[in-house]
Amino acid sequence: MHARQMLTTHPHVRGSANDALITCIEECFDCAQTCVTCADACLGEPDVADLVQCIRLNQDCSDVCAAAGAVATRRSGSNEGVIRAMLEACQTACSLCAEECERHAGSHDHCRICAAECRACEEACRKALQSLRN
Amino acid sequence: MHARQMLTTHPHVRGSANDALITCIEECFDCAQTCVTCADACLGEPDVADLVQCIRLNQDCSDVCAAAGAVATRRSGSNEGVIRAMLEACQTACSLCAEECERHAGSHDHCRICAAECRACEEACRKALQSLRN
Amino acid sequence: MHARQMLTTHPHVRGSANDALITCIEECFDCAQTCVTCADACLGEPDVADLVQCIRLNQDCSDVCAAAGAVATRRSGSNEGVIRAMLEACQTACSLCAEECERHAGSHDHCRICAAECRACEEACRKALQSLRN
Amino acid sequence: MHARQMLTTHPHVRGSANDALITCIEECFDCAQTCVTCADACLGEPDVADLVQCIRLNQDCSDVCAAAGAVATRRSGSNEGVIRAMLEACQTACSLCAEECERHAGSHDHCRICAAECRACEEACRKALQSLRN
Repeated sequence: MHARQMLTTHPHVRGSANDALITCIEECFDCAQTCVTCADACLGEPDVADLVQCIRLNQDCSDVCAAAGAVATRRSGSNEGVIRAMLEACQTACSLCAEECERHAGSHDHCRICAAECRACEEACRKALQSLRN
Repeated sequence: MHARQMLTTHPHVRGSANDALITCIEECFDCAQTCVTCADACLGEPDVADLVQCIRLNQDCSDVCAAAGAVATRRSGSNEGVIRAMLEACQTACSLCAEECERHAGSHDHCRICAAECRACEEACRKALQSLRN
Repeated sequence: MHARQMLTTHPHVRGSANDALITCIEECFDCAQTCVTCADACLGEPDVADLVQCIRLNQDCSDVCAAAGAVATRRSGSNEGVIRAMLEACQTACSLCAEECERHAGSHDHCRICAAECRACEEACRKALQSLRN
Repeated sequence: MHARQMLTTHPHVRGSANDALITCIEECFDCAQTCVTCADACLGEPDVADLVQCIRLNQDCSDVCAAAGAVATRRSGSNEGVIRAMLEACQTACSLCAEECERHAGSHDHCRICAAECRACEEACRKALQSLRN
């Protein structure tokens, strides 16, 4: 992805790029795509009736990550309160989705991979939030 | 909009529809569209250089409202923690956007209308959150 | 919704608002919300395994309508080629989704309502495209 | 990104993954993020009044890429007509956005990087569409 490259050429950023936030943006877009795939893969499984909660959490996670990634990207003007609120929502969404995917990881590889990506995104949100407090 | 009709026919809802949440969903989609228009209208104004913050807040608000509206719609399985987090983020985004639009309401009608819609959505989120605590 | 109000105060529109396009924008946001609900309602039905195609089409329709509604809203600068392409994609998505929902309309009220909304959005896209050719 | 990994574990894909389509999905999410950044970077430039068309095209491109990426990801059931329509819309959006960003590439690095990414996404869409015809 190009978040790092793009943000270091942003007129309001240049040399003072927030690394933790940039990593978080990239994880958000990655996770959004991963969760769309997991929800759809679960939908295509023979045991779909047992995967309803997993599909639900993946769909929500995908929507939240996509919005968080976009909101966290913007640097013109300022809207830190909204960035924080979205990163907190994203951390929550990823944590719950990872937990549910972990339940099915033994039976479905896509859930195993998705759980790992959600944990990575959850952690990236946590670190980005920490960077905003300093 | 059809949120009310659709949710009262949802297998997990039927007779026990949460009115405050349904109103909130409708406001979220309405507000998302309103903010896309306001950001774009401000972009087209001669004084665009003075409207950068307003454009920024409208773009963020639109993204947050769209995600909140989708997340708040879902009833299969359960994900209340994420619904709460998104409604809180939405309430914050709408409040900040309304405040900024109110600054320009005297000069730009689209900002006046958008501010009113953001206040309506902010209030709808507040009431929906309250309904989830009971 | 506020599309009409907002667009008639847009600096690049004012008196020359395209009614067919405004109606289409409103239908797009309405349809996007309706399809999120239908996909989720189908997911919650006991016969979910028979509704996989319906869920798939609703999820795609929702994504396309949301993007089409946003793209069709913008008036600053110009991007007619993209508006056309998105309205064509939306017309296609709504037509296919309506057709699939109509198959289940007898068994599931949410599919009946969703099919009607998709047909309305399909028609709105057709009329909006026509208005762009004149 | 994890599109390749996830799709090769999808119950309806496994060994027969369409490489061109997977590359396209990844470019779509990358491009969506890049264009959000470019629109915002242009908004923060002193010469914002000369970048209105560029901002407009970037915002549309971002919305189209995000929707195309999600739609192209799904494999449960089938919706090829919509995948084609969205990839065509995406190819158009990226081409027009690249062309506009190229105009400003000499003055703004973020436009130079964004133009390159839009051209890559445009080409990925072209190849993916070709793969769907075979």
